[in-house]
Amino acid sequence: MATPHVVILGGGFGGLYCAKALAHAPVKVTVIDRQNHHLFQPLLYQVATASLNPSEIAIPIRYVLRAQRNAEVLMAEATRVDVANRRVTLVDGHIDYDFLVVATGATHSYFGNDAWASRAPGLKTIEDAVEIRQRFLLAFEAAEREDSEEGRRAALTFVVIGAGPTGVEMAGALAEISKKAMGQDFRHIDPRSARVLLVEGLDRVLPSYEPALSEKAEAHLVKLGVEVLKGRRVTDIDEQGVTVGGERIAARTVVWAAGVAGSPIARTLGVGLDRAGRVLVAPDLSVPGHGEVFVVGDLAVVMQDGKPVPGVAQGAIQGGEHAARMIMRAIAQEGSEPFVYEDRGSLATIGRNAAVADLGRVKLAGFWAWAVWAFIHVLFLIGFRNRLFVMLSWSWSYFTYQRGVRLIQRKVPPTLLSADDDPSIEPPAPRGDA
Amino acid sequence: MATPHVVILGGGFGGLYCAKALAHAPVKVTVIDRQNHHLFQPLLYQVATASLNPSEIAIPIRYVLRAQRNAEVLMAEATRVDVANRRVTLVDGHIDYDFLVVATGATHSYFGNDAWASRAPGLKTIEDAVEIRQRFLLAFEAAEREDSEEGRRAALTFVVIGAGPTGVEMAGALAEISKKAMGQDFRHIDPRSARVLLVEGLDRVLPSYEPALSEKAEAHLVKLGVEVLKGRRVTDIDEQGVTVGGERIAARTVVWAAGVAGSPIARTLGVGLDRAGRVLVAPDLSVPGHGEVFVVGDLAVVMQDGKPVPGVAQGAIQGGEHAARMIMRAIAQEGSEPFVYEDRGSLATIGRNAAVADLGRVKLAGFWAWAVWAFIHVLFLIGFRNRLFVMLSWSWSYFTYQRGVRLIQRKVPPTLLSADDDPSIEPPAPRGDA
Repeated sequence: MATPHVVILGGGFGGLYCAKALAHAPVKVTVIDRQNHHLFQPLLYQVATASLNPSEIAIPIRYVLRAQRNAEVLMAEATRVDVANRRVTLVDGHIDYDFLVVATGATHSYFGNDAWASRAPGLKTIEDAVEIRQRFLLAFEAAEREDSEEGRRAALTFVVIGAGPTGVEMAGALAEISKKAMGQDFRHIDPRSARVLLVEGLDRVLPSYEPALSEKAEAHLVKLGVEVLKGRRVTDIDEQGVTVGGERIAARTVVWAAGVAGSPIARTLGVGLDRAGRVLVAPDLSVPGHGEVFVVGDLAVVMQDGKPVPGVAQGAIQGGEHAARMIMRAIAQEGSEPFVYEDRGSLATIGRNAAVADLGRVKLAGFWAWAVWAFIHVLFLIGFRNRLFVMLSWSWSYFTYQRGVRLIQRKVPPTLLSADDDPSIEPPAPRGDA
Repeated sequence: MATPHVVILGGGFGGLYCAKALAHAPVKVTVIDRQNHHLFQPLLYQVATASLNPSEIAIPIRYVLRAQRNAEVLMAEATRVDVANRRVTLVDGHIDYDFLVVATGATHSYFGNDAWASRAPGLKTIEDAVEIRQRFLLAFEAAEREDSEEGRRAALTFVVIGAGPTGVEMAGALAEISKKAMGQDFRHIDPRSARVLLVEGLDRVLPSYEPALSEKAEAHLVKLGVEVLKGRRVTDIDEQGVTVGGERIAARTVVWAAGVAGSPIARTLGVGLDRAGRVLVAPDLSVPGHGEVFVVGDLAVVMQDGKPVPGVAQGAIQGGEHAARMIMRAIAQEGSEPFVYEDRGSLATIGRNAAVADLGRVKLAGFWAWAVWAFIHVLFLIGFRNRLFVMLSWSWSYFTYQRGVRLIQRKVPPTLLSADDDPSIEPPAPRGDA
């Protein structure tokens, strides 16, 4: 029999750790991703908030696997899986497999309001992060040029929707930068007057954490100046702002950190999906009826002890490694085993010196949680250079309160201001408190 | 009399050094730029070749001027100057001045072949650099997936047009990365087989340098594997490649480093321009007939000792500072003085350990020129953080031969391959030399 061919869709945590776990298996491995890089998503919000460079949390997948001789990397976009014929269709070709691991993750869901996407971008890719960074920085530029107090207020109002870890981290970072990093840079506005609102439909922030940690996280957020709106749903988002539980909030910048939708390729597997489009896998992570197809990471719904395995890096890493073991057992003609998720805890940071950590028996908040958070995130970053540069960036920000990546990179819209009749710009008039 | 208002268009070297030179002058200063950042253009080619992050050579203009209380920064795009009424029109407003300094620089010229722009991007902005980086990295990804030897050859052929400092530095860096940094990353291609061609219409590389240094630079380029085509003009660029002096070269990636065109706002000044659209300024850098309007940097044509002041950072810095002095003299009702450019030398790097330096009496080539080049470039970078990170990036690249920013960041085109009938992709077949 020819060497079995394992095709892995997606070079995130699930796909990459699966490929690495197969390094010494008697298989050929092909990792397919539409990006050239593995992205360390837990730090993506730091790119969106001008702390880190995109390249510091990304690394070429083929560079990570360069020494693994049984693996190759293909930059391509998979559109469909034909499980009956064991074939993956790409936008520009196809590829056959003996074993398939689908690790294409999830994206955000606007709960049917797809029109909100352009007004309230989510945070899943480097491109999203650069877009949000640009909007955030442009808001201050626009505020500096606004004539009316009303326009200035809207420009300096930032709304983050969804108070899971990403939303909490975003809101904390936005508040911190506004209060600390913009210092003396502006003449007509005081960046410290910026409002950051965090909106959550459920009744507490970090709803998947212990209630005691939610409380501590909220207290930290409030201390940073974030306005937390709990138990309130967003009913509308338009050019001028958002409507939250009936209340209208004028805001130029809105960020979406709510809702999960499985990657669309799941629909072509011909198996059961949950409402969010994620695959209901068998206990061994395979697809029901196709023991040679596995789904791991955010795209899989795995129930354990009556609750779902959380969509975090550890879930994907352990799932990817489990799928690799199952493939090796199948080749050795051994039976499959159920996946057992080992909960290593949850972490979320809320700003300088502040985080919450749920490490099973140990629950931390404040500085030590923050230190644990920083250590673990550097540890799981791939690549020595990335680790070094992230640590340096953090140290620099820590001591200077500055953000090193205040770069508006993309084509700038020709106008920052809303339609107005040729406004005249006055020469420098320092603001009152200067 | 009210405090005179100095408007500076452009936050490059000329504009920024002019603003700083006015720090203690009895004026109000407004710096207008359509970007939020000052860009250190001499290192832009290192962003295009995946060595440096965009933010490491860019810094928010308002951060640089944060402590200069008589200055403010406006992110806006100027479209027209009305010299009679001393007013600048912006896309979204207007602003009046008492003194105007136009430092909007130059862009590349395609000599009337504007259709070439999309095929052969030039290198002037961060966006250009990220675009070229993406094309360069995608070329290797496409080559890895190409079935035909012909397609692979075209994908791995890089043509740089124009052998001034930017073209020489680009070609050297592209060759170096192909030979060294891609190492074991690919399975079906050998990145070392990439061809880098440098095309120059004149009869030597670095035509503005001493002939002896041109020879040394060319020797270094050839040693790196660059094919130098001198005295040959590009007559066509299309989807499949370029035509150089009648010869057809199939190439997927083409970079434009030739031609200069003054920023379009110059045309609204109502004064004489040269063929490239640059302003023919008076000896004091003012615009003939308007002593209160100055043009500095790449947009100005300044003749000295029978030859033009070169379009380099030093020319812009000294010009900006001169314009500031002239404004202060005018306010003090003193007469104007001619601009005297002090030539501090020219530098160009050709890769690891190799550069050429023309420092007046001292002419260097090789390692010491390279050391001088690195020292001066770090020195003129603005911002401690940028200096630190650039030095670290260089050290890391120097010792590892790697490039830290191999990131394809923008939306990836859905297909890497040219139209083909559903090509099947074979599982891993290591290349011959593995």
